[in-house]
Amino acid sequence: MAAGGEPCRILGIDPGSVNTGYAVIEALGSRLRHLESGRIAAGNGAFTDRLRLIFDGISDVVDRLAPAEVAVERVFVAQNADSAIKLGQARGAAICGALRSALPVSEYSPTEIKQAVVGSGRAAKEQVQHMVGLLLSLRETLQADQADALAVAICHAHTRASPIAMAQRTVVTRSRRGRRA
Amino acid sequence: MAAGGEPCRILGIDPGSVNTGYAVIEALGSRLRHLESGRIAAGNGAFTDRLRLIFDGISDVVDRLAPAEVAVERVFVAQNADSAIKLGQARGAAICGALRSALPVSEYSPTEIKQAVVGSGRAAKEQVQHMVGLLLSLRETLQADQADALAVAICHAHTRASPIAMAQRTVVTRSRRGRRA
Repeated sequence: MAAGGEPCRILGIDPGSVNTGYAVIEALGSRLRHLESGRIAAGNGAFTDRLRLIFDGISDVVDRLAPAEVAVERVFVAQNADSAIKLGQARGAAICGALRSALPVSEYSPTEIKQAVVGSGRAAKEQVQHMVGLLLSLRETLQADQADALAVAICHAHTRASPIAMAQRTVVTRSRRGRRA
Repeated sequence: MAAGGEPCRILGIDPGSVNTGYAVIEALGSRLRHLESGRIAAGNGAFTDRLRLIFDGISDVVDRLAPAEVAVERVFVAQNADSAIKLGQARGAAICGALRSALPVSEYSPTEIKQAVVGSGRAAKEQVQHMVGLLLSLRETLQADQADALAVAICHAHTRASPIAMAQRTVVTRSRRGRRA
């Protein structure tokens, strides 16, 4: 895990059963740098083929860009039980693509993400997309899931840079090292 | 992949956000042999720790017992969207534990499983448990998720032994080899 003075690579994921957004940024305190973002299409194949594409897609991003920490948006609602199960499965597959490399995964609520990116937990989706582009100096139009993945990565960068989080991280890192030794 | 005349090891999974049942059996035509079954407890920790336990647990079973094929019960319903997302995530993590080793994963509906194990798609849960014990000559009392994992593995063993499935499998195996060559 990167210490306070070193840049930390963060992978943000916006899982979906159709498209999964991903974004890798580098954070040094409050300074952020965009490395790569995009979407993984789960395709139209059989259910397990879709999960495989998501799992392999995130695994590939982890292998290529070597993030140290991962952030995912917490989900509460879905239209119905069927779409909730599909979304849950996609989410499980995406997160396992990171767990495969034993990365720590943090979750943030939509309100926490909006608060961190725009400064208001009630901000509209367009405001979040706009601020994501500004914060990372991106000129291209962002796809919705790509912007959401960037937003959760930025939220994690801000949260981990807070004094409380830095103190907690030191404790966690120590106890983890203790267990593995 | 095992040919018709060789025994095939099948991993059956009954995913759940609290306990995930698993079962590995060996099938040679209609002859079945129990190798190992049990449950993976997801614990009471943070959400990603639970997914990690499920993913690692299934990965461990795959590494130790080397099944060639995997079967999972298809899920349609859940009490509400929240429990559906939790179940979906557990399911995604369990399946990724198998996808990690590039194993083929098949899904069966509850009706198909009951039909294959008891001979009636409307059989009660107790009948399924009873028949699972009889078919595999198991004397101990089975936990519910362990019995469900055994049932879906048996269902897959019966289905893959059917003439249609054997013909389809030959085609799939050929096209896979073709792609990899």
